[in-house]
Amino acid sequence: MNAETDASAGPWARRARSELSPETLDQLDAWWRTANYLSVGQIYLLDNPLLRTPLTRDHIKPRLLGHWGTTPGLNFVYAHLNRAIRERGLNTIYIAGPGHGGPGMVANAYLDGTYTEIYNTIDRTEDGLRRLFRQFSFPGGIPSHAAPETPGSIHEGGELGYSLSHAYGAAFDNPGLLVAAVVGDGEAETGPLATAWHSNKFLDPAQDGVVLPILHLNGYKIANPTVLARIPEEELFELMRGYGYTPYLVSGGFDGEDPRAVHERMAATLDDILDRIADIKAAAADGTLDGRPAWPMLILRTPKGWTCPKEIDGHPAENNWRAHQVPLPDARDTEAHTHLLQEWLESYRPDELFGDDGAPVPLATALAPDGERRMSANPVANGGLLRKDLRLPDFRDYAVEVPSPGGSDSEATKVLGEWLRDVIRDNPHNFRIFGPDETASNRLSAVFEATDKQWNAEFWPIDSDNHLARAGRVLEVLSEHQCQGWLEGYLLTGRHGIINSYEAFVHIVDSMFNQHAKWLKTSRRIPWRVPIASLNYLLSSHVWRQDHNGASHQDPGFIDHVVNKKADVVRVYLPFDANTLLSTYDHCLRSVDYVNVVVAGKQLAPNWLTMDQAVEHCTRGIGLFDWAGTEVEGEEPDVVLAAAGDIPTLEVLAAASILRERVPSLRVRVVNVVDLMRLQSEDVHPHGLSDREYDAIFTTDKPVIFAYHGYPWLIHRLTYHRAGHDNLHVRGYKEEGTTTTPFDMVMLNDLDRYHLVIDVLDRVPGLGAREGAFRQEMQDARQRARAYTRERGEDIPEVAEWSWSGEKGAVRSDDTGGDNA
Amino acid sequence: MNAETDASAGPWARRARSELSPETLDQLDAWWRTANYLSVGQIYLLDNPLLRTPLTRDHIKPRLLGHWGTTPGLNFVYAHLNRAIRERGLNTIYIAGPGHGGPGMVANAYLDGTYTEIYNTIDRTEDGLRRLFRQFSFPGGIPSHAAPETPGSIHEGGELGYSLSHAYGAAFDNPGLLVAAVVGDGEAETGPLATAWHSNKFLDPAQDGVVLPILHLNGYKIANPTVLARIPEEELFELMRGYGYTPYLVSGGFDGEDPRAVHERMAATLDDILDRIADIKAAAADGTLDGRPAWPMLILRTPKGWTCPKEIDGHPAENNWRAHQVPLPDARDTEAHTHLLQEWLESYRPDELFGDDGAPVPLATALAPDGERRMSANPVANGGLLRKDLRLPDFRDYAVEVPSPGGSDSEATKVLGEWLRDVIRDNPHNFRIFGPDETASNRLSAVFEATDKQWNAEFWPIDSDNHLARAGRVLEVLSEHQCQGWLEGYLLTGRHGIINSYEAFVHIVDSMFNQHAKWLKTSRRIPWRVPIASLNYLLSSHVWRQDHNGASHQDPGFIDHVVNKKADVVRVYLPFDANTLLSTYDHCLRSVDYVNVVVAGKQLAPNWLTMDQAVEHCTRGIGLFDWAGTEVEGEEPDVVLAAAGDIPTLEVLAAASILRERVPSLRVRVVNVVDLMRLQSEDVHPHGLSDREYDAIFTTDKPVIFAYHGYPWLIHRLTYHRAGHDNLHVRGYKEEGTTTTPFDMVMLNDLDRYHLVIDVLDRVPGLGAREGAFRQEMQDARQRARAYTRERGEDIPEVAEWSWSGEKGAVRSDDTGGDNA
Repeated sequence: MNAETDASAGPWARRARSELSPETLDQLDAWWRTANYLSVGQIYLLDNPLLRTPLTRDHIKPRLLGHWGTTPGLNFVYAHLNRAIRERGLNTIYIAGPGHGGPGMVANAYLDGTYTEIYNTIDRTEDGLRRLFRQFSFPGGIPSHAAPETPGSIHEGGELGYSLSHAYGAAFDNPGLLVAAVVGDGEAETGPLATAWHSNKFLDPAQDGVVLPILHLNGYKIANPTVLARIPEEELFELMRGYGYTPYLVSGGFDGEDPRAVHERMAATLDDILDRIADIKAAAADGTLDGRPAWPMLILRTPKGWTCPKEIDGHPAENNWRAHQVPLPDARDTEAHTHLLQEWLESYRPDELFGDDGAPVPLATALAPDGERRMSANPVANGGLLRKDLRLPDFRDYAVEVPSPGGSDSEATKVLGEWLRDVIRDNPHNFRIFGPDETASNRLSAVFEATDKQWNAEFWPIDSDNHLARAGRVLEVLSEHQCQGWLEGYLLTGRHGIINSYEAFVHIVDSMFNQHAKWLKTSRRIPWRVPIASLNYLLSSHVWRQDHNGASHQDPGFIDHVVNKKADVVRVYLPFDANTLLSTYDHCLRSVDYVNVVVAGKQLAPNWLTMDQAVEHCTRGIGLFDWAGTEVEGEEPDVVLAAAGDIPTLEVLAAASILRERVPSLRVRVVNVVDLMRLQSEDVHPHGLSDREYDAIFTTDKPVIFAYHGYPWLIHRLTYHRAGHDNLHVRGYKEEGTTTTPFDMVMLNDLDRYHLVIDVLDRVPGLGAREGAFRQEMQDARQRARAYTRERGEDIPEVAEWSWSGEKGAVRSDDTGGDNA
Repeated sequence: MNAETDASAGPWARRARSELSPETLDQLDAWWRTANYLSVGQIYLLDNPLLRTPLTRDHIKPRLLGHWGTTPGLNFVYAHLNRAIRERGLNTIYIAGPGHGGPGMVANAYLDGTYTEIYNTIDRTEDGLRRLFRQFSFPGGIPSHAAPETPGSIHEGGELGYSLSHAYGAAFDNPGLLVAAVVGDGEAETGPLATAWHSNKFLDPAQDGVVLPILHLNGYKIANPTVLARIPEEELFELMRGYGYTPYLVSGGFDGEDPRAVHERMAATLDDILDRIADIKAAAADGTLDGRPAWPMLILRTPKGWTCPKEIDGHPAENNWRAHQVPLPDARDTEAHTHLLQEWLESYRPDELFGDDGAPVPLATALAPDGERRMSANPVANGGLLRKDLRLPDFRDYAVEVPSPGGSDSEATKVLGEWLRDVIRDNPHNFRIFGPDETASNRLSAVFEATDKQWNAEFWPIDSDNHLARAGRVLEVLSEHQCQGWLEGYLLTGRHGIINSYEAFVHIVDSMFNQHAKWLKTSRRIPWRVPIASLNYLLSSHVWRQDHNGASHQDPGFIDHVVNKKADVVRVYLPFDANTLLSTYDHCLRSVDYVNVVVAGKQLAPNWLTMDQAVEHCTRGIGLFDWAGTEVEGEEPDVVLAAAGDIPTLEVLAAASILRERVPSLRVRVVNVVDLMRLQSEDVHPHGLSDREYDAIFTTDKPVIFAYHGYPWLIHRLTYHRAGHDNLHVRGYKEEGTTTTPFDMVMLNDLDRYHLVIDVLDRVPGLGAREGAFRQEMQDARQRARAYTRERGEDIPEVAEWSWSGEKGAVRSDDTGGDNA
C-alpha cells in the first residue's frame, strides 16, 4: 500500500493520491481471475475442478444453468472494492442488482473465506472446490441468484428493479456504511429502478450512510441490447446529472484490451469517487455542506461476458447477448466445445492461482479485508445480528375510553399515530415509517410531534414545508415501490419499520411482497441467517371508505395475494377499532420474520372494546361478542353472525341489534375475527384453530352469516375443510362501487345491516316465512336508505330513522361518512 | 387567425410565425375562465349554478369531494391545444395524468359540446349546468377522475403512473396523431412513469404518431412538495435531455401575474414545439431524419390550484398543498366561507361567460375545434369505433400432427409463434406483441420471420442487432409496466395485441390489470363506449418450468388475482398442448372487452389432442379424456382424475396410465379443464357450468383428485358450492420450489404421478388397504426418482425405469426438462 490513510478522520478520509503499485495491481488481477475461474467452474463443472486431468464430458454438468454475462463485471467491482476497504478501512456491503449474479457473489465469498466459515464442507481443498462447483444450480444446492443462501447478500436479483431502493434502505441510519450497489443495465429499464435514482433527495449526508450506484453497462439483456447502453454517452451523463449525481466513467476491456489497463483506470476512478465522498461526508459532519450534494456514481462499461471465448461456432460470444447465460451450451456434447471450455478455464491460469492442496494462493486472496470488513461477512448484511428489540411504550397507555360498546368514537389510525409518535421518540435511530405521500391522509400525523419527514431536495421558506427536514423518521415519496424497497433494505440490515398505504394501491408492490416473503421463507431455513424484524403493512383508506375516490381506489385483494404465500411467514389482522388496532400493532412490532398485514380504518367510528377486552380478544384472535348476541347459556344459537373488519363489524352489530329488538326469541351468536389466519386449519397455518375450537365457535350445523372486509370467497377458501362449511354464507366486496356515499358502498355489495338481517331471516329454517312483514320492512329500509343517500349525496345521518335499540350496548349509526383524503 | 397553414403538408406543417392576436388571446382566456368556473361549480354546487342569487348554504353540496389543485393547469393546457388544433388542423387526444383531473376534463368536454351530445340532459341551459355540477362525485353520478364516463379519455388517473405509457401506446401506428400527455409532478415520482420517458427509444417517427409530454409542475402532492419541483431547473432540464427530449419551459401565474401574459408565453412556446415536431415529421417522411430525434417536451410550472383564493383563514391556499383537494372545505358551514366561494366563482366573471339562457357565450367556446377534431370527440379515444376485426389465418392450418395421445412432441408457444407470425403478416398496422425481453425466451421467435423488434436507440453494425429495426410489430423493454401500459394504450385506441411474460413476474402489473379490468367493467355499462379488443396475456416460462431459475421465478398466483375481478371481464385458459393453445388463442384474438389470461408451456412436451379434438375440447372448455380413462359405459366411475394445465395434464395422464396397468378393475374417469371459469357456478360466471353439467362430469359422491397448475385452494374457491365439493382433493403449487429439476418441482409439491396414484389409492374406499404393496411401490418410485434427480442433476431420463403402458395412447415421460432461458 503506497498511500497513507488519515486514520483520525475515519473511513471517509480523503487519501493522499499516488499511482497504483504493481503489487496491488497483481493482487487485483489475481483476485479477479480467481473469482472468474470459480464462477465458470460453478456453471460448468461437476468434477476435476482444478483441471488436474484433461477435461472430459463426465466432468461437465448434464444441465448447464446459470448466467455468465454479468459475472466478470461483478467480480471486477468486488476486487476493487476490496482494495478500497483495505486501504481506507471502509465498512461496505455489496448489492448485486443484475439478475443471476449468484456465481460471482459465491466465488468472492469463497475467496475471502466467509463461505468456508459458514459452509464448512466447502473448504479450501480440491474436494471443497468440487463441492462448491457442483452445488451451484443443482438439485439440493444453491440458486443462481445472490439469494439468502449467499453470504453478504440482502438482495436476490431474481426479480429485477429493487437494488437501488434496497441500497438506500440499508444506508438510512448507518452513517458509517458505504453501500455499493451494482445496477444492471437491463434492470435499469424497470420502473422501480428508474425512480430509485431519486432516493438521493431523501438521504441525509450527516446521519445516513453513502450509496455508490455502479451502473454496469454491459450492453445486453436476454435477447436485446439495453436502452442505456444505446444512447450517446453525453446523454447518459445528462440523465445521471439530472438524477442529481456526479457521474464517473470507466470503460474498458473491449477489442482485447489488457485488463490490467482497465484495473488501473478503475482503481484511480474509485479513488476519485471515494475522495469526493470523503469531502461530502466531512462537509456534512462539520455543517458546511451546502444543500444536497451531487453524490458520485460510476458508469462501468465492460463487455458482456468479458473474458469468455470471443467467438463460438463462428458467432461472437464475448460482448454479445449470447454471453448472457451459458456461452458454451454444448460443452458436454461435443469434444470441440469441451476443449473450448478447457481453454477458457485455462485462460485464467489456474496453476498460478491455486496451490497443490487446492487452496487459492496468497496472491489470489491478498485483497480480502479482515473479519467483518469482508463484504461477505459484514453483519449489516445479516441484519438479524444487529437487530435490537424496539423500546415500545405500553400501548395500554394510549387506550381510548369505551364506556359501553359503541359508546365512544375514534379514528383508529389516529390513535395508533399517538403510540407510533412515542415509538419514534423512544427509538430515534432504528425505526422508520415509509409511505407514498399518505401518512397524514392515513391519520398518522401525531408522529410529526416527534419527528419530521426526511427530505433533501430544495426547502422553500413557506409554511407548506412544515415537518420537512434533512433528518426525520418518516419518508414519503409517491412510489409504493420505493417505500417498500427502502423498508426492505432497512429491515434486512437489522432495523424496524412500517409502510402505510391506501389499501387498493398496495397491489403496486404485490410482486415485491412475493419476493420478500420468499426471501423470509428461505432465510428461516438457513441456520446462520438471524431473524429480522417483520415487514409491517398498515393499510388504511380501505375499500369501504373509498366511496369518494371511486372504483379505482377500491380493492381489498392484497389479503388474497398475501395468503398464497407460506403460512409460516404471513399474518393478516383486521382490528376493528382503536384499542384492537393498538394491541395488534404492538404485537406486530415485536415479531420477527413475518409479513404482517394490518387493515384498519381512519375515519371516526365507534369503539367496541375496552383495552382489557381488546387485549384478550386480540390474543385469541377470534371470539364471541356475548354482549351483542342473544344466546341462552347451555343452548346452541339459532344463527351465527360473524364479522372480520371494521365496517363488517359495524354492520353485523347493527344487524344483531335489529334482530334483538325485532326477533327477540332468536338466539343469535356474534363472532368477531381479528386474526384472519385463525380460520384456517391448524395443520395449514400455525394460527389455525383446531376443528374442535372452530366447531365450538361456529357450530357444525347452524347458519353462519359472515360479513367480511374483502372478497367473500376468501373466507370460503380458508374454511372449506371445516365441518360447518356448507352452512357458511359470506358477504363482502364483490367489485361493486363507484363515487358515492359510504353506506351506499355497503348496500351496493349487500353487506349492509338490512341485508344481513334478511340473510338471517332467509337462512334460519322457517324464520323468513314467519317474519314476512319484517323481512319486507328491511327491504324497504334498504331502499329508503339508498334513495336518501342518492338524492342528497349525504350519508345516512341518523340511524333513528330506522330505529333500533338493545338493552346492552345500543348500536348507533356510523354517521361520520368518508372524508376527502 | 393570423398565420397561414401550409395545407399541403398536412397537420404537421410548420407555420409562419406571428404574434398571438388580441382576439385569440381573449378566446384563450375566456375558454380557460369558463372551464375553471365549470370545474369549481362541479366541486361545490348543488344549485344556483350561475349565481343568479347570492350563494347560500343550500346551494352547496353536503359532501365536498374532488381535487381542485391540478384542474386549472389541465384547463389551461386544454385551451391552448384547442387553439393549435384549430390553427393547424391537428388530430389530437389529451391524456390527463394527474390524479382526480375529472372536473377539468368534463368541463372542457361540456364547453366543446361533446358532453351534451353524449349526455343530452346535461345541456346548455341553466338546468343543464345544475345537472352538470350536481352529478360530479355524487351518488349515481360521475367519478372525480377522467374515467370511462369522461368523453375523450383513455386514461383514468385514479392510480397514478401510466399516462406516458398509455400515450405512447396510443401513438403507435397512428402516424397522424398528436397525443398530448399531461404528467403530474406527483405521478412523475412513480416507477412506471419514471421509466416511461424512455418510450421515445421505441417510437418510429415515420410510422407512429407524436407524444408531447407536458410535465405539469405545480409543486405539491397530497401533503408534500414534489421531487421534480424541488430540484434546480437546470437539473430538471438535464434530466429531460438525459431522457432524450428537448425541454421547453413555460412558467407563470405566480405572485399574481396576469394570466394573459402566461397565455402569450404558452401560445408562443407551443408554436415553437409544434414547429419543431413538424420539422421532425417532415424529415422522417422524406427519409432525412438522422437517428432518433430529441422530441420536444414541455415543462409547465404554474401555481397549484391557480386562481383559487390566495389565502383561507390566514393560511396560503393557492400555490400550496392546501389547494390539492377542496380548498374551502367549510364552504357550506360558515357564512364567511360561503361568501369566499362566491367571490372565487365570481372572479371568473361568469356574467361575461354565460348568456341569459345559461349557455356559454360564443367567446367562451370560440376555440372549440370542429366535430371529431374536438379532443373530447376524437374517435381515437373511443377506440372501439375504429377497431377492425383482425384478419386471422386459419389456426387449423398450423396444427401439429398427433398420431396418438402423446404420440408427438411440440413446444406449444413455438407453434403459436408460427400462427402469430402470420397474424402479423396479415395485419401489418393494427396488431402488436409486447414483452419484457422475453419474446424469444417464450419461444415466439417465428414472428421475426415476418417482422422486427421496433427500436429507435442506437443501432450497432453487429449481428446482435438482428431483428432490431425502426419499425416492427414487436416491442420489448425490460419493464412489464411499460409493456402493459403501451398495450393498454394501443387497445384503447382501437387496435389489437398481446403481452407475453414470465408467469411469476406478471405480478409486477397486478395493479395495472386491476385498473384496466375496472375500466372495462365500467365501459361495458356505458352505451356510447364501443367494445375494444381484449387484453390478452400469454404467460409462459411458468411455475413448473422455472426449476432452473429458482424460487424467485415461481409463482402461479396471477390467476388468483385476476379472478377477483368481475366475471364479465375476466377469462382464464390453461391449454395443455400446441393444438389447444392455437384454438384458445384464436378465440382470444376474436374477443372484445375481456382480459384473457392464457398460461401455456414453452418446453418440448407431448401433444395430446388432434386439432379437431382440440377445437371440440376448447369449445366446451372442459371435457372427458375417455381414451385415457377406464370407465365402463353405463357405470359411474370409482374415481375422477382431473387436470388443468400442461404439467398437471401430463402427470394425471401418467397416473391414469399406471392405474390402468396396475389396478385394471378400477374405473377411472379422466377430466381436463381448459377454461377455468367452467368450474364456477353459472350464476357467478357466464362460462360457469350448470350444477347438472358439473355433477355429470365430476359426480356428486366419488373422490375427485384434481391436479391444478396453480395454488390448489383456487379450485376449492371456484367450486365450494358444488355438490361433490367435499370429495374434491386438489394438488397444486404450494410454494415449494428451488433451483432443481422439473420432476423434482412436481414432487416437492406432491403433484407427481406417483403421488396422484397414492391419492387415488387412499381415497377410493378400501383400495389403499387392498393395494398396500402397490402403494409402497409408488412411494419407492418417488424416492428413487428424487434420488436420481438429486444425485445427477438431471431430470428423469426415461419413464421405462418405472414402466407402464396402456392399450390406448401409451404415456411417455416428459424427459425434455427445463431449459436455460
